[in-house]
Amino acid sequence: MKPEELSKKLAGEKAVDYIEQDMLIGLGTGSTVFWTMQKLAERVKEGLRIQAVPTSTATEELARKLGIPLLTLEDVKELDLVIDGADEISAELDLIKGGGGALLREKLVALASKKRIIVADSGKLTEELGGFPLPIEIVRFGWEQTFSRVLQLGCQITLREAENTPFITDNGNYILDCKFDGITDPVGVHQQLKLLPGVIETGLFVQLADVVVVGFPDRFELLER
Amino acid sequence: MKPEELSKKLAGEKAVDYIEQDMLIGLGTGSTVFWTMQKLAERVKEGLRIQAVPTSTATEELARKLGIPLLTLEDVKELDLVIDGADEISAELDLIKGGGGALLREKLVALASKKRIIVADSGKLTEELGGFPLPIEIVRFGWEQTFSRVLQLGCQITLREAENTPFITDNGNYILDCKFDGITDPVGVHQQLKLLPGVIETGLFVQLADVVVVGFPDRFELLER
Repeated sequence: MKPEELSKKLAGEKAVDYIEQDMLIGLGTGSTVFWTMQKLAERVKEGLRIQAVPTSTATEELARKLGIPLLTLEDVKELDLVIDGADEISAELDLIKGGGGALLREKLVALASKKRIIVADSGKLTEELGGFPLPIEIVRFGWEQTFSRVLQLGCQITLREAENTPFITDNGNYILDCKFDGITDPVGVHQQLKLLPGVIETGLFVQLADVVVVGFPDRFELLER
Repeated sequence: MKPEELSKKLAGEKAVDYIEQDMLIGLGTGSTVFWTMQKLAERVKEGLRIQAVPTSTATEELARKLGIPLLTLEDVKELDLVIDGADEISAELDLIKGGGGALLREKLVALASKKRIIVADSGKLTEELGGFPLPIEIVRFGWEQTFSRVLQLGCQITLREAENTPFITDNGNYILDCKFDGITDPVGVHQQLKLLPGVIETGLFVQLADVVVVGFPDRFELLER
């Protein structure tokens, strides 16, 4: 296993320690949460009773395969815990998410959760957000005008594609990947983008991480806010 | 024909005078634009060359039936003109729209148009916005949590239904109808709502109407900003 994958495995598995009997949890999307789910499935087989809200159809399918009991966000008022990944993590524990295309559901599940745990390999830590292009979810109708409005904020934009056609989110929308020259004011950038007509949500998760489990090839570190 | 219907017909038909040869236009949704489209179809049969972007599948179907040439917003950079209705019109010509459920596409088309003409019967005029419940389009996933967030702004909310199930917009989303005790600061209310996670767009159209054609049973008046 490569060092990065080992780091992801360590962080992903460690987060399972936060899950207690009878909890309602949220399950994020991505290659680190993959390891959380493998470990969680083992614990469920050993008798851990939990129910999980998936943040994407990909996570839903994996959970089904692994035998992790599922429920939907409509079934609950609140979740005890969410475990999710991140594409970039600042020193303030603010995040860029959405590399996997599930940022909208991930944010809605995070907001419905009492405690939010982020799992990531150490390569995701950064001094300043913005090295990773910021994903934003936009309405398909009139997307080119929305693209132009976002462009005026001063970033470089790519319409995300999959197999040479626009990538479509689980909610039926498009994703723009927006490269800024560093994001020093994540709240301001988020609000500017969110206010634009056609923009549904941004991948900036500000003050939404309570604990970050950072994986290294041979150990993990816990960062808390 | 009832007085209100006569008023709608007069306003709707009058707006067609703004349409010139070879224009690209936007067509709104609703019972007043219905009359615009009837008149426009006559003019097209007489030789007027235009192409229209519909703001809803309902308008698209009506346009097809009437023989009005259609195009999509993706085909154009800009529209010359949009003609649309409104549910409430303030003295400042700010609007509440969305009674027909097409507010998102209507706003995106309005923003893509050089000139915006609103058609309405005189019953839609009001001193202060908010007598009509403000429609907002929200994401289906996690809608109950979004409902709670909107509730905290201090309004009464109904999830819009059609035939006893939630009404679904052309974009696959839900509509919340939000009754405020008067909206004295439309920009502020719009921004508070738009910034909430799960909210896609609001039916507040601030400074987006250039001309309002107000219909009365026996005449029309033009209001300009």
